[in-house]
Amino acid sequence: MRTQVCIIGGGPSGLLLSQLLHRKGIDSVVLERKTKDYVLGRIRAGILETGMVELMREAGVGARMDRECFVHDGTVISVGDDQFEVNFRDLIGAHVVVYGQTEVTRDLYEAREAAGGKIVFNVEGVQIHGADSDAPYVTYTVDGAEQRIDCDFVAGCDGFHGVSRQTIPLTVRKEYEKVYPFGWLGILSETPPVHDELIYASSDRGFALCSMRNENLSRYYIQCSLSDSPNDWTDAAFWEELKRRIPSDMADRLVTGPSIEKSIAPLRSFVTEPMRWGRLFLCGDAAHIVPPTGAKGLNTAASDIHYLYHGLVRFYADGDSAGLDGYSQKALARIWKAERFSWWMTSLLHRFPDQSEFDIKMQQAEIAFLRGNKAAQIAMAENYVGLPY
Amino acid sequence: MRTQVCIIGGGPSGLLLSQLLHRKGIDSVVLERKTKDYVLGRIRAGILETGMVELMREAGVGARMDRECFVHDGTVISVGDDQFEVNFRDLIGAHVVVYGQTEVTRDLYEAREAAGGKIVFNVEGVQIHGADSDAPYVTYTVDGAEQRIDCDFVAGCDGFHGVSRQTIPLTVRKEYEKVYPFGWLGILSETPPVHDELIYASSDRGFALCSMRNENLSRYYIQCSLSDSPNDWTDAAFWEELKRRIPSDMADRLVTGPSIEKSIAPLRSFVTEPMRWGRLFLCGDAAHIVPPTGAKGLNTAASDIHYLYHGLVRFYADGDSAGLDGYSQKALARIWKAERFSWWMTSLLHRFPDQSEFDIKMQQAEIAFLRGNKAAQIAMAENYVGLPY
Repeated sequence: MRTQVCIIGGGPSGLLLSQLLHRKGIDSVVLERKTKDYVLGRIRAGILETGMVELMREAGVGARMDRECFVHDGTVISVGDDQFEVNFRDLIGAHVVVYGQTEVTRDLYEAREAAGGKIVFNVEGVQIHGADSDAPYVTYTVDGAEQRIDCDFVAGCDGFHGVSRQTIPLTVRKEYEKVYPFGWLGILSETPPVHDELIYASSDRGFALCSMRNENLSRYYIQCSLSDSPNDWTDAAFWEELKRRIPSDMADRLVTGPSIEKSIAPLRSFVTEPMRWGRLFLCGDAAHIVPPTGAKGLNTAASDIHYLYHGLVRFYADGDSAGLDGYSQKALARIWKAERFSWWMTSLLHRFPDQSEFDIKMQQAEIAFLRGNKAAQIAMAENYVGLPY
Repeated sequence: MRTQVCIIGGGPSGLLLSQLLHRKGIDSVVLERKTKDYVLGRIRAGILETGMVELMREAGVGARMDRECFVHDGTVISVGDDQFEVNFRDLIGAHVVVYGQTEVTRDLYEAREAAGGKIVFNVEGVQIHGADSDAPYVTYTVDGAEQRIDCDFVAGCDGFHGVSRQTIPLTVRKEYEKVYPFGWLGILSETPPVHDELIYASSDRGFALCSMRNENLSRYYIQCSLSDSPNDWTDAAFWEELKRRIPSDMADRLVTGPSIEKSIAPLRSFVTEPMRWGRLFLCGDAAHIVPPTGAKGLNTAASDIHYLYHGLVRFYADGDSAGLDGYSQKALARIWKAERFSWWMTSLLHRFPDQSEFDIKMQQAEIAFLRGNKAAQIAMAENYVGLPY
């Protein structure tokens, strides 16, 4: 088989790239290790930056999102019982939207299928060959049969554990990582959200986040020990602990119910450099991970897709490779700022096992400064809705 | 002897308070452990916030400062060879002034002496009695003779090692501290400053600061190991190391010369709470220490003096103790923000022995964000010129 762009990974990044390229007449094949149902079953973030929203529209898959999403003009930050809102609309005339990653993925699958896009599921043993040559190709097996795709470019959208990053030799690749000494215990519950915006809660007992998918689907998280297991936490214990970490008026209003999903996620910051090696381009989690604080995961993937998409369009339109040549540098410049923002929000709001009382005072002083200083709120708002591409 | 306010410590805080009170007809006595020449010989910071400048004028000692000071509209931040200016005037219409703490102290001594102010030098064994009663008094010896001053209030302006803070029982007092794992090696040199604004320099080799006292008196610092001694550093070695940490165009322009002072200062963040115990009020270094990055030391003392001065004036004018009762809370609210700013600038610009490559990338990303984001620059400028009292 031959295609122009072989895309490894059928999550939202790979699908979005495939769909965007299709609309510019550029052919691609998407290879996915799992089934479509498995991909759709993954529960991930639900906050979309302005840039991601625009990219969805540009890909022609924005209609349901525009219809069903919830616009959030700001977010609430609380410390114990104190709370304040950072209002993006008032500060900078912008907002974010709540639309689950699952929904994004579903819309993209529908569009790809409607257009007859080539997506191969259940691929095994993917290998990228000749990425640093002019004639790269990808091999894999499906149903036991060895397959080969020849292509112009390979887009590595296969996540942190995928083969794409591993394909770049260690002599070329440099990795940066921070592992946080705690996790997030999250539940999904068919209850109305406690508030119509997200609540990022700092407390003596640790961080909590009140988030949502829609008006009857809430997503709540509490900072937990990495040694905890979801089985250690009954629903009752989770709700009890959540209530102790959020302002009491919110706790009083909180509607509880059975969890329909419960899991623990570790928190990690990770970046690999460069994001391009020859004709292989890394996108999203394949190149970088952020802790979930600030909801940058899917949005950083979207910015990579933006840069790669425009680089490929320019290349196929008139043979100009400047966009592709500048991909790694441009993508990384924005990624590092998003990494900084996620690290900053994580550092600001969590309790760390080794932090001193002075360190806790610094967190409190920074939150107090943020509460009272418009410029600091603007800087936060600009990061939260997404820095310009 | 009897006075209204007994001020422990004859540095700039104590003198400024004494002078301000004098102009409102409130009597004070200043007790200083050292000689006047010793106090004037201390070399300290030279950057005054707007609030401190106004307080000097209010105390009637602003004439020489206004004549001889240098207005700085901004400051330079560099990373290796890259540099950019944060221009306070353009961002928020404000500035700082360069006027050495030695000059501030000299002006205050002159004013106190001209007004016949009571300053007792060479006091030993100062003790504060009955601070939590209605009749506090202070005892000390001078020339071997025991002395006693009865007063309404005691102002503890006697620095980090002074007796005032120690007077507050440990059951009442809570201290917060961070000791940084490096020092600043500083020299004073009779050479023209390399640039007309300060340069805060981050480099692979550590932090450096190019500062000044006037057009022919430069103050330079380099981050050094706490195990270093000033004797380990020849002038030539100092200049060589400084040049490697600042942008090459600055290094090329740097005029070197013999040092007339060379010393190593440790860096520490420290705050004690509360800042008031009964009739004893802590001011400046007696209550809090900042690392020198951002030049907040003298300026945080000034904000304490501002709050205490107004509290005392209100009390003596109409017996209203609200200002005094609110002193600790108000002073601390501002102090913690200044502590946060100094900690942030210190954390942003220095190399730390235990920092990972990811941590260094976070510093670089934060500086890059600051460079490109107006709101972040405004937030920095507002802190640098001094948050409102």
